[in-house]
Amino acid sequence: MRGVVMYAAGDVRVEEREDPKIIEPTDAIIRVTASCICGSDLWPYRGIEAVDHQVMGHEYVGVVEEIGAEVKTVKVGDFVVGSFVISDNTCEICQAGYQSKCVHGAFVSATVGTQSEKARIPLADGTLVATPAQPDPELIPSLLAASDVLGTGWFGAVAAEAGPGKTVAVVGDGAVGLMAVLAAKQLGAERIIAMSRRPERQELARFYGATDIVEERGDEGVAKIKDLTNGLGAHSVIEAVGTQESLMQAIRSTRPGGHLGFVGVTHGVELSGLELFFAEIHLHGGPAPVRRFLPDLIQLIWDRKIDPGKVFDLTLPLEEAAEGYKAMDERRAVKVLLTV
Amino acid sequence: MRGVVMYAAGDVRVEEREDPKIIEPTDAIIRVTASCICGSDLWPYRGIEAVDHQVMGHEYVGVVEEIGAEVKTVKVGDFVVGSFVISDNTCEICQAGYQSKCVHGAFVSATVGTQSEKARIPLADGTLVATPAQPDPELIPSLLAASDVLGTGWFGAVAAEAGPGKTVAVVGDGAVGLMAVLAAKQLGAERIIAMSRRPERQELARFYGATDIVEERGDEGVAKIKDLTNGLGAHSVIEAVGTQESLMQAIRSTRPGGHLGFVGVTHGVELSGLELFFAEIHLHGGPAPVRRFLPDLIQLIWDRKIDPGKVFDLTLPLEEAAEGYKAMDERRAVKVLLTV
Repeated sequence: MRGVVMYAAGDVRVEEREDPKIIEPTDAIIRVTASCICGSDLWPYRGIEAVDHQVMGHEYVGVVEEIGAEVKTVKVGDFVVGSFVISDNTCEICQAGYQSKCVHGAFVSATVGTQSEKARIPLADGTLVATPAQPDPELIPSLLAASDVLGTGWFGAVAAEAGPGKTVAVVGDGAVGLMAVLAAKQLGAERIIAMSRRPERQELARFYGATDIVEERGDEGVAKIKDLTNGLGAHSVIEAVGTQESLMQAIRSTRPGGHLGFVGVTHGVELSGLELFFAEIHLHGGPAPVRRFLPDLIQLIWDRKIDPGKVFDLTLPLEEAAEGYKAMDERRAVKVLLTV
Repeated sequence: MRGVVMYAAGDVRVEEREDPKIIEPTDAIIRVTASCICGSDLWPYRGIEAVDHQVMGHEYVGVVEEIGAEVKTVKVGDFVVGSFVISDNTCEICQAGYQSKCVHGAFVSATVGTQSEKARIPLADGTLVATPAQPDPELIPSLLAASDVLGTGWFGAVAAEAGPGKTVAVVGDGAVGLMAVLAAKQLGAERIIAMSRRPERQELARFYGATDIVEERGDEGVAKIKDLTNGLGAHSVIEAVGTQESLMQAIRSTRPGGHLGFVGVTHGVELSGLELFFAEIHLHGGPAPVRRFLPDLIQLIWDRKIDPGKVFDLTLPLEEAAEGYKAMDERRAVKVLLTV
């Protein structure tokens, strides 16, 4: 089968890979219908994370082609959406809603690589969720978004306790930030401030429910959020970037007693204990337990209540994955969908 | 009047200070019945925080001697307990339960200094709570504890979401840690693990409700907590020290999705963003909004349902404050009560 391999920073190739096979009785093999390129794939692409002949891709939707003897909840022919973290969905941590930290958990990105024609998904019962029927093609991008960026933005909004009566600020206007705006809106937030300086992303943020746009960053961005919130800061802040500057901006934009949900994978970030202590905010974040939210998110998409698929602004065939990475790296695209 | 002044690290003196007077119409003057020495007073005493002729003391109970023209909720003759943070208790932040970050907030320690015969308490309506009547002398230590260490330990337990079905670990066996054990017990925690290596404090921890004692620290302490929790970590962890080691021990003892309440004032602590991200715990802490809890805590004490006063293991007259500091510094006392 064909699949994406990142040879080194900036060097993405589509090449022949061995077809996956059932190894464990809890595995499923899926034929990938669509995959995509994640903002986090840009860290190794830009040389910020080490990379050496890494299979790529951890977001996916597809059709089950084969299942192991012990798989019970999905069957051959099902259209499925899966989380970017493999989980058994039965351990105590999963049952508490933290499938991203399952005691048998593993990242799909490490070995599976879903920017490919097929993929072996371990712990299929705990990782995959079948859609109610075969989806209309127009739903594919939205279902694919649920696999990571929607689930991650949603987790950020839940971690930030976005809800009725709340003013929510979102730091980061990438796909996850935009999905956090969507989630905050769905969760009933009263006011949603998107921090973005790019007109096309501001427009998407408004489409997803942003009521205000703040273009300033750093201390100026914080001051603007305070201006908009009676000097107090937002009740809920979602951080969807992962740099020192963006996380500090998020912490300082949160009012005392408020909630910060941080879902941008942090890179080189150090937090001062004393600043955190006196900020007196709630912090929660990490790799999103997408599996917790998948059944509800799939239903919202199925019922056409949300349209997260609009976050994909470039669609390319798998063979042109290298161009997709380039487009995202150069910020010509928010998020690239790869058709398989 | 007589009052404590810390001239420099290790140099505590009791000397004549000017009697406080009403300055603002929202002030009250109280005659201090009892005050005490806080673990946080040891930071400057040990030279870890700068200090220069600082009036000391921020925990207090006493009798109202005079009130400003606008004070409505306490009257002359009332026995009152106050928080270590001045608050109006009416602003949006106070109303959300974060009186320690009141928009008009200030630390009592900065200018008031309650290790003294009298004290001027600004924003008396928002800061002080009157007891139902004049208390029995035996209740004084417990009411005094409510002013800070009990309220702080309680906040730690609330921030850590201690409650029914939860395993709670407490890092730190000082007065605040012991009060966190008491709070976890009152909040209905199933299992309470006190991390302590001093026999007399282990005994107090057991008195307050600890079901298990872990003597190990650092990575060994974390391993022990994991051993006791099926390899997962505690649901709720309360950090009541404030050092890098203790906070890391607390973070690593918390299970994914669990809650860490940190109430030890941090000193020189730096947290790795990446470790926090992948720990995937909830963090909340800071200076305790004691005022939020005071009415309930006073009632629990009044009804003899809790006995936090037992945390004071040395009582000295105000004039002997220097010996009190020495005893706490040398760990001969957990917490020193100063009678006035």
